[in-house]
Amino acid sequence: MTQPIDPVALTSDLVRCASVTPEEGGALGVLSDVLEVAGFTCTRVDRGEVSNLYARWGDKGAARSFGFNGHTDVVPVGDRDAWTVDPFGAEIKDGYLYGRGATDMKSGVAAFAAAAVDFVRESPPKGAVILAITGDEEGDAIDGTVALLDWMEREGERMSACLVGEPTCPNKMGEMMKIGRRGSMTGFFTVKGIQGHSAYPHRALNPVPVMARLMDRLASHELDSGTEHFDASTLAVTTIDTGNPANNVIPAECSATVNIRFNDAHSSGSLSTWLRDEADRIADESGATVDLRIQVSGESFITPPGDLSALIAASVEAETGVRPEMSTTGGTSDARFVKNHCPVVEFGLVGKTMHQVDERVAVDQVHQLKAIYARILQDYFA
Amino acid sequence: MTQPIDPVALTSDLVRCASVTPEEGGALGVLSDVLEVAGFTCTRVDRGEVSNLYARWGDKGAARSFGFNGHTDVVPVGDRDAWTVDPFGAEIKDGYLYGRGATDMKSGVAAFAAAAVDFVRESPPKGAVILAITGDEEGDAIDGTVALLDWMEREGERMSACLVGEPTCPNKMGEMMKIGRRGSMTGFFTVKGIQGHSAYPHRALNPVPVMARLMDRLASHELDSGTEHFDASTLAVTTIDTGNPANNVIPAECSATVNIRFNDAHSSGSLSTWLRDEADRIADESGATVDLRIQVSGESFITPPGDLSALIAASVEAETGVRPEMSTTGGTSDARFVKNHCPVVEFGLVGKTMHQVDERVAVDQVHQLKAIYARILQDYFA
Ligand SMILES: [Zn+2]
Ligand SMILES: [Zn+2]
Repeated sequence: MTQPIDPVALTSDLVRCASVTPEEGGALGVLSDVLEVAGFTCTRVDRGEVSNLYARWGDKGAARSFGFNGHTDVVPVGDRDAWTVDPFGAEIKDGYLYGRGATDMKSGVAAFAAAAVDFVRESPPKGAVILAITGDEEGDAIDGTVALLDWMEREGERMSACLVGEPTCPNKMGEMMKIGRRGSMTGFFTVKGIQGHSAYPHRALNPVPVMARLMDRLASHELDSGTEHFDASTLAVTTIDTGNPANNVIPAECSATVNIRFNDAHSSGSLSTWLRDEADRIADESGATVDLRIQVSGESFITPPGDLSALIAASVEAETGVRPEMSTTGGTSDARFVKNHCPVVEFGLVGKTMHQVDERVAVDQVHQLKAIYARILQDYFA
Repeated sequence: MTQPIDPVALTSDLVRCASVTPEEGGALGVLSDVLEVAGFTCTRVDRGEVSNLYARWGDKGAARSFGFNGHTDVVPVGDRDAWTVDPFGAEIKDGYLYGRGATDMKSGVAAFAAAAVDFVRESPPKGAVILAITGDEEGDAIDGTVALLDWMEREGERMSACLVGEPTCPNKMGEMMKIGRRGSMTGFFTVKGIQGHSAYPHRALNPVPVMARLMDRLASHELDSGTEHFDASTLAVTTIDTGNPANNVIPAECSATVNIRFNDAHSSGSLSTWLRDEADRIADESGATVDLRIQVSGESFITPPGDLSALIAASVEAETGVRPEMSTTGGTSDARFVKNHCPVVEFGLVGKTMHQVDERVAVDQVHQLKAIYARILQDYFA
């Protein structure tokens, strides 16, 4: 009988691959070696400069096809001198495994790969187990999970449910899973007036107070007070800039940026309309020209609490003793792409040190995460 | 009998001195040579790196002591290649004398020096004629006219009335004299909040919308609707800056600058109180820290229409056929210092090309200006 896969050893192997986005760095090779031995069909799905890995055990298009999604690319090391260890050394000390990607999210990938391999060996399910692993989550996310999903659609590959293994717990293992995310969009405003001398403001058209009023209006507008599964939508004015060093000059132009995180009471379309209306209104009132460019990072989405989230919550509670909150907080993740294809939930470990110097993961947590993922597979196919 | 002084030749001599502020460049020497021959007592009043010239004909402290004030320093040449002539060549073509300082204000100084010399020679007055000429008007104006006035006070020198010979006419010779100026002050605001992530604005304290609301309040407040001799006071928000390039980050700090031009309904003190009150109010409302630094360039002042302005207006009208408007518009001038000592009025030629490339003055206007100044002296001592 084969030995169970040690998720900590597998995490270490992955950390030793310098897969700084978009470099593959050997990480996907490490995984397909482990998976192929266990009977997974592995396919490299490369697009642009990005490598992705699709691995399936069981029949293509099976009715019950449980998928895991994750990424092996990592953010850059940052200030190398501030690290107390080799960022790609996978050093273990005092119960922690150190290295870039240790929490985000090579340990998550290692945990679900280990759980999946052990599961199909010990209790081969009726259905398919799928791993969709990308090398482009930390980058532009254009040729990563999206490329995998495009390829799956073309090939008739499918998942009936998906778990994204990103870190989801703020402080304590098991305390939070994510069933959706707010959408995110950014508006770039430019107000153009007429330059002039500070002593003669009536001969100029000062764009700065026009922008100040517009930003005050946007920032003080209550978008909503939250919905059933979501916190209130928020708008942050992240910058206003003019760059005029001369006190005696009224400048010609002023720019500002707002970032909106929105729940399911809105869409990027409805919010774009609102922003454009406010831009037009202040332009009418002031006589200035108000330009607006909008960039949408993602719509809000929700997998409403149901069978999948209940199953995952139960598995988490069984292994940790903690009932996870079903949250929709946080930044974007690749779940925003997966949700167009099947129900998707996110659950992973505590992400406190992600993207930081001396990123590290508690070794115990990696074992615990593998156990949770294993229980999810057992329950899903039970 | 001596020849009358040619103000155009004297302007040319002055333009040939490269007296870019704070360089004296020989200009004050040119003047004292002309003045001493006519019986003026000339004193160099130097302070810091600046040279100034005080010249008096007649008795010190005389009851009627008419003074002219002006400057021989000039702003830098700027884009030398854009000039079609030597900026210090004093070239005359098509009726114009070209060069840096030709209008601002070597021609003004030459005109009043020529008028004063001819006047004391031809009709020696009962009283004193004074020329207070500075080499630091275009610079910091700390060691210029202020140094002359300090020195005069110490020495028992006085003027009973003063005319500042800066260009005052927007387009047409004779159309405007200045009897006062609005004050000018600048407020530098900094709002400090707490940095954070755009997705979690409630954990941060965003200084940008706080600044936006503060600037909207300041810009939309009507300071006054004008006073008897003044236009309305104005406030211009000249810049708001944050410098945050990251849409997902709420910045810690935002800065802004406001420039106020104020009439005699206010003082820099009353306006400082208002600005500080508004800063405190928005700080209380928002929880942010709001810092304010204030820089006062000058208080407003007025020489109310009376004997002096009537005399000057009559002289201008007699020589030009144009009745000058008594204005309080425009930027600061050294009249703001003189007004603490005696009634002061400004009158000079058309200043259209001042501080520009190919600065030039109409030769006819220089002769006309000398005639006006001569008539003012005759009328004052009549
Ligand atoms: Zn991640
Ligand atoms: Zn000047």
